[in-house]
Amino acid sequence: MIDDAQLAQILHRWPVARLATSDAAGLPHVVPVVFCLREDTIYSPIDGKPKASTRLRRLKNLEDNPSASLLLDHYDSDWQRLWWIRLDATGDAFRADAQTTGQLEEALRAKYPQYLTTALFKAEPLFIRLRWHRVSAWAPEGFDKVLARLPETRP
Amino acid sequence: MIDDAQLAQILHRWPVARLATSDAAGLPHVVPVVFCLREDTIYSPIDGKPKASTRLRRLKNLEDNPSASLLLDHYDSDWQRLWWIRLDATGDAFRADAQTTGQLEEALRAKYPQYLTTALFKAEPLFIRLRWHRVSAWAPEGFDKVLARLPETRP
Repeated sequence: MIDDAQLAQILHRWPVARLATSDAAGLPHVVPVVFCLREDTIYSPIDGKPKASTRLRRLKNLEDNPSASLLLDHYDSDWQRLWWIRLDATGDAFRADAQTTGQLEEALRAKYPQYLTTALFKAEPLFIRLRWHRVSAWAPEGFDKVLARLPETRP
Repeated sequence: MIDDAQLAQILHRWPVARLATSDAAGLPHVVPVVFCLREDTIYSPIDGKPKASTRLRRLKNLEDNPSASLLLDHYDSDWQRLWWIRLDATGDAFRADAQTTGQLEEALRAKYPQYLTTALFKAEPLFIRLRWHRVSAWAPEGFDKVLARLPETRP
């Protein structure tokens, strides 16, 4: 349905995903996230956009239960153009060394010009790191067409 | 942050949400859904859009674990225009009587003209019913402005 190259292209270019985690009791929680791809791993910064609390539920949940489900999808009033990709993943809080932090900063600033005016980190550099083990995907018209239309999307 | 009238307006008009559930072991799962609002309850039809399987994970999960997290959000390249609303909810599979089914069909066809060409149900009329007990919401510029821009959005 989707091949590795198509998936990598979408992960590099699609600006938003929804991250679902669960707490130790199985209570689900879902938030929108920005992210970048580096060597088959997804990194989502705990950035300077205002947050509801300093002790983020997504971090607490992953500490107690590392299972995560990440959804990339597009809603369109033309339902032939709907698509979604879901990654079943394992996630954790990741504090990178200085070199890796620099590379991830560069990748995020390249993908999101918004970081010119929004702080890339809330406090110390901190990421949610997601490594996936399963990909599910659906696109009625196929991911070739989805990719052909991606340039219309601005991060 | 958001009042009941603002929430109802957005639920009536925003076309897509992401529904997170968890299985009995706490494994999270997230899917995009369409939905309508009726008397403080959200109904999402198991509709005729192609599905990955007939035994939907969202239904199995809610049977084993009725906790759900529903996210409505808007991504925008202008990060001042980002917003999200999360409903912590209890969900179940709902087979309505004929009268209620008729009312929900009417609400869904009014919200989504796409149901002129897409089957409203996969098989028998079946909904995921979501009753929320907690609302979290975030919008840097406030929900008055979010609502003022909603007419730009077509279901």
